[in-house]
Amino acid sequence: MSFNTFGRVFTFTTWGESHGPALGATVDGCPPGIALDEAFIQTFLDRRRPGTSKFTTQRQEPDQVRILSGVFEGRTTGTPIQLMIENTDQRSKDYGDIAQAFRPGHADIAYHLKYGIRDYRGGGRSSARETAARVAAGAVAQAVLRELAPALRITGYMVQMGDLHLDRAKFDPKEIGNNPFFLPDADAVPAWEDYLNAIRKDQNSVGAAIEVLIRGCPAGLGAPVYAKLDTDLAAAMMSINAVKGVEIGEGMAAAALTGTENADEIRMGNDGPRFLSNHAGGILGGISTGQDILVRFAVKPTSSILTPRRTINQKGEDIELITKGRHDPCVGIRAVPIAEAMAACVILDQFMMDRAQTGGARGRIG
Amino acid sequence: MSFNTFGRVFTFTTWGESHGPALGATVDGCPPGIALDEAFIQTFLDRRRPGTSKFTTQRQEPDQVRILSGVFEGRTTGTPIQLMIENTDQRSKDYGDIAQAFRPGHADIAYHLKYGIRDYRGGGRSSARETAARVAAGAVAQAVLRELAPALRITGYMVQMGDLHLDRAKFDPKEIGNNPFFLPDADAVPAWEDYLNAIRKDQNSVGAAIEVLIRGCPAGLGAPVYAKLDTDLAAAMMSINAVKGVEIGEGMAAAALTGTENADEIRMGNDGPRFLSNHAGGILGGISTGQDILVRFAVKPTSSILTPRRTINQKGEDIELITKGRHDPCVGIRAVPIAEAMAACVILDQFMMDRAQTGGARGRIG
Amino acid sequence: MSFNTFGRVFTFTTWGESHGPALGATVDGCPPGIALDEAFIQTFLDRRRPGTSKFTTQRQEPDQVRILSGVFEGRTTGTPIQLMIENTDQRSKDYGDIAQAFRPGHADIAYHLKYGIRDYRGGGRSSARETAARVAAGAVAQAVLRELAPALRITGYMVQMGDLHLDRAKFDPKEIGNNPFFLPDADAVPAWEDYLNAIRKDQNSVGAAIEVLIRGCPAGLGAPVYAKLDTDLAAAMMSINAVKGVEIGEGMAAAALTGTENADEIRMGNDGPRFLSNHAGGILGGISTGQDILVRFAVKPTSSILTPRRTINQKGEDIELITKGRHDPCVGIRAVPIAEAMAACVILDQFMMDRAQTGGARGRIG
Amino acid sequence: MSFNTFGRVFTFTTWGESHGPALGATVDGCPPGIALDEAFIQTFLDRRRPGTSKFTTQRQEPDQVRILSGVFEGRTTGTPIQLMIENTDQRSKDYGDIAQAFRPGHADIAYHLKYGIRDYRGGGRSSARETAARVAAGAVAQAVLRELAPALRITGYMVQMGDLHLDRAKFDPKEIGNNPFFLPDADAVPAWEDYLNAIRKDQNSVGAAIEVLIRGCPAGLGAPVYAKLDTDLAAAMMSINAVKGVEIGEGMAAAALTGTENADEIRMGNDGPRFLSNHAGGILGGISTGQDILVRFAVKPTSSILTPRRTINQKGEDIELITKGRHDPCVGIRAVPIAEAMAACVILDQFMMDRAQTGGARGRIG
Repeated sequence: MSFNTFGRVFTFTTWGESHGPALGATVDGCPPGIALDEAFIQTFLDRRRPGTSKFTTQRQEPDQVRILSGVFEGRTTGTPIQLMIENTDQRSKDYGDIAQAFRPGHADIAYHLKYGIRDYRGGGRSSARETAARVAAGAVAQAVLRELAPALRITGYMVQMGDLHLDRAKFDPKEIGNNPFFLPDADAVPAWEDYLNAIRKDQNSVGAAIEVLIRGCPAGLGAPVYAKLDTDLAAAMMSINAVKGVEIGEGMAAAALTGTENADEIRMGNDGPRFLSNHAGGILGGISTGQDILVRFAVKPTSSILTPRRTINQKGEDIELITKGRHDPCVGIRAVPIAEAMAACVILDQFMMDRAQTGGARGRIG
Repeated sequence: MSFNTFGRVFTFTTWGESHGPALGATVDGCPPGIALDEAFIQTFLDRRRPGTSKFTTQRQEPDQVRILSGVFEGRTTGTPIQLMIENTDQRSKDYGDIAQAFRPGHADIAYHLKYGIRDYRGGGRSSARETAARVAAGAVAQAVLRELAPALRITGYMVQMGDLHLDRAKFDPKEIGNNPFFLPDADAVPAWEDYLNAIRKDQNSVGAAIEVLIRGCPAGLGAPVYAKLDTDLAAAMMSINAVKGVEIGEGMAAAALTGTENADEIRMGNDGPRFLSNHAGGILGGISTGQDILVRFAVKPTSSILTPRRTINQKGEDIELITKGRHDPCVGIRAVPIAEAMAACVILDQFMMDRAQTGGARGRIG
Repeated sequence: MSFNTFGRVFTFTTWGESHGPALGATVDGCPPGIALDEAFIQTFLDRRRPGTSKFTTQRQEPDQVRILSGVFEGRTTGTPIQLMIENTDQRSKDYGDIAQAFRPGHADIAYHLKYGIRDYRGGGRSSARETAARVAAGAVAQAVLRELAPALRITGYMVQMGDLHLDRAKFDPKEIGNNPFFLPDADAVPAWEDYLNAIRKDQNSVGAAIEVLIRGCPAGLGAPVYAKLDTDLAAAMMSINAVKGVEIGEGMAAAALTGTENADEIRMGNDGPRFLSNHAGGILGGISTGQDILVRFAVKPTSSILTPRRTINQKGEDIELITKGRHDPCVGIRAVPIAEAMAACVILDQFMMDRAQTGGARGRIG
Repeated sequence: MSFNTFGRVFTFTTWGESHGPALGATVDGCPPGIALDEAFIQTFLDRRRPGTSKFTTQRQEPDQVRILSGVFEGRTTGTPIQLMIENTDQRSKDYGDIAQAFRPGHADIAYHLKYGIRDYRGGGRSSARETAARVAAGAVAQAVLRELAPALRITGYMVQMGDLHLDRAKFDPKEIGNNPFFLPDADAVPAWEDYLNAIRKDQNSVGAAIEVLIRGCPAGLGAPVYAKLDTDLAAAMMSINAVKGVEIGEGMAAAALTGTENADEIRMGNDGPRFLSNHAGGILGGISTGQDILVRFAVKPTSSILTPRRTINQKGEDIELITKGRHDPCVGIRAVPIAEAMAACVILDQFMMDRAQTGGARGRIG
């Protein structure tokens, strides 16, 4: 067991605090012989990086990743891959006010109650900066999946921000990269911009819902009963900062359905089973069926807002606190590449577990 | 790693198929010296048992648990506890029709694609009967928690069944045990009965949402970053058969909130911090704060319905299938004691992990 | 993590006490589709069974194994395999004298100091009866290896008993099964019988050394740095009751060698590398090379002897104790099939781990 | 599971190759609030460092450790501790000859057969440089143990080098730090120097045996059956490069003993049980008894010698090879601080596991 490790066979352990000298991920179990370099990983980090639009924190970090081990002459060797990102924008500042105070909605009070000590600078270990290390590890997973499951595509996008919802009739994945919201609908972008600008000017923040679509996933991934594919995806998404709910397929809406509505009927297609609907989100009994896998999760609004809130400090005194600093009005936006990274790690891990147990031998139909 | 083990320090491994000779749970890591006997565990199993009302499967199983090891003279010894439940109601029947067919919404096709072989009788390993073993393991966790965290109370109940929702204004936990729905509102019971009767007569089934309230949980449980308490709870609930979504606190609704709405402000109370609201569901940064912990999840409608559905068989032929047998019109009902069991195991596991790392020493406030 | 589980991918968890109702092993991670039945497992258990010669305990247990799950129509399904052995020879007797006393050389005092409670009947969990469950699990591993690595052969035998040593010049593996000592030298059997008879009549016991030879192991098994093949074998053997030392290849004698003596030179053979010697015992850098793997371990003399020894009881009183009961004068004898079982589990586990990471793709030579 | 992680609760994952930019250890599960700084860790690294005498490799590395995370204001925070050591002495050299050849006794051929790719520079991942990271992790464990088990002392020393054996009658632990052999006998040092000088001049190398004495270990550490304390120590020592055998207490010599000789009799002392002998090496049934724990292991002679040896290259050609470079004539010497580090990690890990399960509550005697 490990407190800071994710995965079973393909594993990564993240380390580092927001304002320490560096953070990173120790990736273990990576298959050997996979093409990998820093530039490839960097493209994933750049998608997550703050400071790229006015809707994300203005902290200016290059988030430059270095591969310190496990790669030789451009290929993985099967030994641990150390990915390090140095923290360069550690502004010297006075933390006096928050060092002893517990910001509402933050992990400050929980860390204090558990450990009795915490690096309070920028949230320390509970900072969203930790997710940069996940994105780097996810990039390694993506590099492996490109070779082991070349048909696989993992695509994350926003489906809700506060009162605004994606119009699914206008879903166009090609648009996701063209706007600061990872929104698959170009027409809606101006309205989303106006909405978030208003939130920001109001010194407020707002929640969001993100969906991850996994296409081309091989059937047979997932290990019942406690290492189900949906269980792993739920854990992966819930481990992301500020996430409060996770759904597979119909998700919470399944509670309102009847059995006749919900059953995904099956017909035989030319190249295997073809499901006539996908309420299940591509997973049955914890195992992928080859259909599209659909995961959705909600991110709470950024807890750091410029509006004063009531709280207490370490002495037990009632105080009022404004959380200054450079914050995203909607942290959900940056959760998109993080969720893709986590999904890639889950899929690869299950792929390798399945290879261990079944050798990739599959039951045939027809 | 294990495919069928849950937990890190307090672990249980379930084994057994629906129609094999027996099923059970191997519990490892249990603290020594805890009072435990079969009668105590049986009370938990009896709550989950089918055949107790017309709304649950008419399969008549006594689900009698036997402790085969790890308990000596009424106390746990710290060695593995083997809990075995013999399958007594294995009707001899002809499985010819479903042995080769894939029931829509069931794990049949996924197991076949993964393993190339499956015990098709009653769903085999993917049957909800596996959850009896979880409930037994959860009872052991409850026995331990009674001694290690005596203030803790874990209470599950239904909050939704199809179109019907719990009226939270009428929430009365004392009523939960008085009706077949685990419903904390006595007045609503007749309407829920009528609703489910209609579903059943319609040869249909319906989904449900269940909530688990954890009161008196010590602060400081949960291990960031990948063993967060909410991550573990999400994995625990998602691992239950037919669950499609999990929420902590506000859950998916957090996507619609603003930061000012969502922040749980804090004041100093007489015996520690007092939160003025609980959008977070009792967990911050993955660690319990001492507030009530709130978990909610959705169960899809029973996939086995008497209405014919289109599907395929192992030969790849298109067929129509009616899933006969003894089935619950709303499997969500029986998920209530299962969810309580899983929650107990998560809390105890985190309690023991925390004890390992911090020794139970806690940061003080005031 | 688990206190009672062995292995990483192919895992087994043993449970049960010497005088409880049953004991067994929960095997998880077994590949699907492998032919397996109780009769096959029974052949392995019969080799370990007590009461088969005057040199092993006269406890008469049929040690009949039952498969309770994970096998369907004669083949493994990939789900957990529960192997149960009922304890039938639980003589009712008065344990009054040893219930409160600590037998020298036994785990009694250690269990008491750790847990504060123990099942003192027959040693409880620390009894060698636990190894029956390992042998059953090892039989499953052997069944899998027959299909996945058909050239593999695992052969255990005694190389030392007290003052007697195997004359390696007379090594004949075909003789191992023909005598009660698993001795690969038929001519030496009478002398070993006389020696052990004298020990037994003297109300004494004696230690032993066992060697396990693994032929036909694929190259590439073993995962540096902390899951090396030799590390796993050392842990496996040391986990067997009463084992005090483990050696790979030259073992402790390597301390006396020079580099020129120790280097196993290599030449190219017709079907791959050929090592001109095998000081390394078939493992380099923790990874199998395809050579014979050689593991050796020492078992201390049975602690239960009829000669009175000084000890204390739970009250802290100095007492003298004779350990009555049915005991082997040389427990090392029965360690042979146990060690074979553990070796089979280690090899299969590493085989599956290797398959997970490398997919079985191997570097070529030539 | 992880290929490169050691431990269950207190874990460390080492990463890095001999000639990459850096290597290190990711320590997870460390208790919070423990005083720790780089200077403390450095004292342990300096004991292991090469270049400190003519008997260790002349590679000149400062082996300067940096703490990149997990420590705040001089105390551990309970979050992952990243320990990095930069490789500064990476001489640019031509590896042409060994890049394609397999050095006898080295892991070269095994890595190639497994992974199909390897960083051949200086042995890459299989280099003894990896052990610097273990020593750093072990220093963290030592820092924790100073607070949690202040009476504990871990002392390693050489007991054999080739034909020379420690005269136990002259054992003086105070001398260990005063000579390049970690030898607890000042008088023997000149003879050991002459012996090793002769080996070195002969372009040869020699094996060694090391013993680790653990004093003041609390009783009750060790988790039967597969996480026994002796099992963990065996795995820990066997995981060190070039180790071929591990012994606890009597070790392999137990095979020659009788039961009357081997039983460690017990009397009640003033502060608990007092054992009249220690054949068991302080561990019974896998659990510490409070006695001195004794572990011994053998290290094979350095495989890299200047004497030409026969081998093959990647093309499958028979060649002769001299392994040039800077090598220790007796790698066993540097194994002493490494073994102490591993022992510290095992003890702390078991201490924390025990705290998790039993809460440190102990059975009483008297």
